[in-house]
Amino acid sequence: MAKKVKTAITPTREEDYPEWYQQVVKFAELAETSPVRGCMVIKPWGYRLWENIRESLDVMFRETGHENAYFPLFIPKSFLEKEAEHVEGFAKECAVVTHHRLEAGPDGGLVPAGELEEPLIVRPTSETIIGATYAKWVQSYRDLPILINQWANVVRWEMRTRLFLRTAEFLWQEGHTVHETKEEAWEETKKMLEVYKTFAEEYMAMPVLTGEKTAGERFPGAVSTLCIEAMMQDRKALQAGTSHFLGQNFAKASGIQYQSREGQLEYAWTTSWGVSTRLIGGMIMTHADDNGMVMPPRLAPAHVVIMPIIRNPEEEEAIIRYCEEVKELIREQYYDGRRVEVILDKRDMNAGEKGWSWVKKGIPLRVEVGPRDMENGGVFVGRRDREKKEGYQREEFAAQVPAILEDMQKGLLERAKAYRDENTRDINTAAEFTKFFTPENADKPEIHGGFARMHWCGSTDCEEKANELKVTIRCIPFDYEQSGAGECVFCGKPSKGRVIFAKSY
Amino acid sequence: MAKKVKTAITPTREEDYPEWYQQVVKFAELAETSPVRGCMVIKPWGYRLWENIRESLDVMFRETGHENAYFPLFIPKSFLEKEAEHVEGFAKECAVVTHHRLEAGPDGGLVPAGELEEPLIVRPTSETIIGATYAKWVQSYRDLPILINQWANVVRWEMRTRLFLRTAEFLWQEGHTVHETKEEAWEETKKMLEVYKTFAEEYMAMPVLTGEKTAGERFPGAVSTLCIEAMMQDRKALQAGTSHFLGQNFAKASGIQYQSREGQLEYAWTTSWGVSTRLIGGMIMTHADDNGMVMPPRLAPAHVVIMPIIRNPEEEEAIIRYCEEVKELIREQYYDGRRVEVILDKRDMNAGEKGWSWVKKGIPLRVEVGPRDMENGGVFVGRRDREKKEGYQREEFAAQVPAILEDMQKGLLERAKAYRDENTRDINTAAEFTKFFTPENADKPEIHGGFARMHWCGSTDCEEKANELKVTIRCIPFDYEQSGAGECVFCGKPSKGRVIFAKSY
Repeated sequence: MAKKVKTAITPTREEDYPEWYQQVVKFAELAETSPVRGCMVIKPWGYRLWENIRESLDVMFRETGHENAYFPLFIPKSFLEKEAEHVEGFAKECAVVTHHRLEAGPDGGLVPAGELEEPLIVRPTSETIIGATYAKWVQSYRDLPILINQWANVVRWEMRTRLFLRTAEFLWQEGHTVHETKEEAWEETKKMLEVYKTFAEEYMAMPVLTGEKTAGERFPGAVSTLCIEAMMQDRKALQAGTSHFLGQNFAKASGIQYQSREGQLEYAWTTSWGVSTRLIGGMIMTHADDNGMVMPPRLAPAHVVIMPIIRNPEEEEAIIRYCEEVKELIREQYYDGRRVEVILDKRDMNAGEKGWSWVKKGIPLRVEVGPRDMENGGVFVGRRDREKKEGYQREEFAAQVPAILEDMQKGLLERAKAYRDENTRDINTAAEFTKFFTPENADKPEIHGGFARMHWCGSTDCEEKANELKVTIRCIPFDYEQSGAGECVFCGKPSKGRVIFAKSY
Repeated sequence: MAKKVKTAITPTREEDYPEWYQQVVKFAELAETSPVRGCMVIKPWGYRLWENIRESLDVMFRETGHENAYFPLFIPKSFLEKEAEHVEGFAKECAVVTHHRLEAGPDGGLVPAGELEEPLIVRPTSETIIGATYAKWVQSYRDLPILINQWANVVRWEMRTRLFLRTAEFLWQEGHTVHETKEEAWEETKKMLEVYKTFAEEYMAMPVLTGEKTAGERFPGAVSTLCIEAMMQDRKALQAGTSHFLGQNFAKASGIQYQSREGQLEYAWTTSWGVSTRLIGGMIMTHADDNGMVMPPRLAPAHVVIMPIIRNPEEEEAIIRYCEEVKELIREQYYDGRRVEVILDKRDMNAGEKGWSWVKKGIPLRVEVGPRDMENGGVFVGRRDREKKEGYQREEFAAQVPAILEDMQKGLLERAKAYRDENTRDINTAAEFTKFFTPENADKPEIHGGFARMHWCGSTDCEEKANELKVTIRCIPFDYEQSGAGECVFCGKPSKGRVIFAKSY
């Protein structure tokens, strides 16, 4: 067995993946649990990451013709009930507001009072409440399309929660659009999935598969749900974003009707699509290592930290001044259309400890400046994706920062792609399937888990056979017929192409 | 009587101010009521305005050392109860979550189920829930200060609501800081009020008075509440932002203690400060006129709209192309550090109607381009703050856009300042006070309402005498002693200086 290397995060991914994840989140200071069951506190470093996600997506949404707006937090119970599958899907886990004040109870404490005539649900998603407003806005085909996005908090009363991946309250964006024709709504559904794919790969450096969900995995009330699916470092799948073609289901539930070009009253066609703070969980599980978080440079809360190394107090002023100059040199650089973000960390603490705190936070570049570096006009630089640090002349380094960041961004995507591809297999028999997904093989990466590309007949019965091992169909890739026809791994009936089976978050 | 001019908004301000306000909001497409009691839908044009407010404030918060983070939507009832005045202040109007799912009831409909052990309150403000987290973060003086801001939605179950001014759910930011010393917390409280004043005046073009609230008008649980107060066009005051010095009240309630430099365990000193979507209401009532909204250029959702005037279809292509060129020329300009935002409105509708739709939305500049303008290389320009339109050569206009916007921005502030000053009076006797604030004088602006600068003895009794006419003390200006000593208008006892009395929103 290889000599055990000391890592900044204990346990390592190999030792205990779920616990490793919690520790990375903790030491990267991204988020923590709160005193409110299932709700998280997103700390400044994590929130800045979310702001960068939001700003980047906002540009893409605007470029595809969408505007932001804001709709109510609460949904009257009767609205949720309008779409049968929808309420079925969300009734089991929702926060219900029943009263509108507190008053002194019999034993002196405060008790809920002022009971509402109709309970309100804290939005788990907003199709029904937004639909009610759209029904008022839409009269004629001239009012279409409506292309609106909302950034909001939503609540789903999950019983088992995990920071970013599954929390009772989470932040997300939800696009809600209305169209004149089925074709246009379908085009929108696919276009927004493509936006998510581009964002996941080019910004998050997280490769994703795109495809359609099976009927059992659809959004409650949708006609079709498209998704992006990524592979985490434990080889499980993460559904990272969904785009729903809602047909006329919600238009009928909310009464969104328009006068057509032919003068007929028609129901409109709607879509909805969303990504959430879950993306941060995906980013962690795609890039972080046994030393902590690794931020993809395009979304990093900051790109560079400068750490003065002060051995005796007389040097302090000169070194700090030098660091300020280096900071200015770097801030003159642009990466991905914005100024390079630099932090000068003057905290009075042990240099090693300080350096590791930034490794764990995943900042792309760490710059150390000691007396010798200062004398030579140099800086000593650590890249988060390499072990060895390197010396540079300060101007030379500053000028290279954008190129280094871009190199890191590309490298992260390539590494993640390679990992996914290595752990994607064609599985051809039920026995192979069992072997691939059996927990006893969990410590044998050469045979265990990952994405299984398998022939499937399309039946719910065979889908459920996979469920016995906690495996689900993650998606039917758009191009699945290109893998060629074959026979269902479970029943032998004909299959048009391979679909993706995996365990998932 | 002057000939009645036709206005785009009916009624006019003079005819029916509250109804005028509703109509401005409606025709500017800023927001509308929703099917959920007291909750509003913020429409794209209004939401963009809010985004611009958020982005501008965020820069100012960052420059003063603050970071953004996010805390839970829900507050356990017991947390709210920890600070006696605080719960007293908010218990009467809060949304209470009592259940976490819906299930089929006896008559088939869904009923709340899964009762929570402890009810949760939808945050009306977050001192108590954030305090609980800060208590964990703060151990030693080295952990201080904590300077965090949150952008969030909050809920206060108001019985009488009005779009932007008073809604059950609203959007806001709330800063929550923790300090080692009383002095530092006081300095922060004042610093953030100053940020609000700068923002109100330089961005919103809304002049504000700054000062301290009386004990009766304080935030529940605060030691002192500072505020910015603006005058609306009906001469009522609008409290537009508050900054609270919380002393050690919330630190004690939440257990925020730190090891001091001397090794003692001490309670920390905290502040909180916030502004909300109410600012949009303030902007409307400061600048809008009888033709609708007037956007201060620095916050305008867009600066310029270009409207092609097409009289016959053959011209269409050439005019649109010309408009695209004008758009590019204007977009090359920068105003206030960002690209000038230009909309090309190609909607197929009556030119007059289209023009008025933009007047009502308050866009600073409207550019019309007809065949003749195109031939001459010109544009025809309407400024929202002037009646007459003017012709320009297109390059000349584009180059002047930033200067025109800045001129408008300054002009709005000056006009609002002049209005406020005209309607601010020194009031010296109880009889004058009554005359100034009596509703029967409502149609006599020369004597009715506004800000009354009055001597006040400091007693609650005299403050309550003013309340009989629905007048409150808006603030004790920081420099109130400069107005010289005098005698309380109500009781004749000594007063150190004049304070501001007014009716308010």
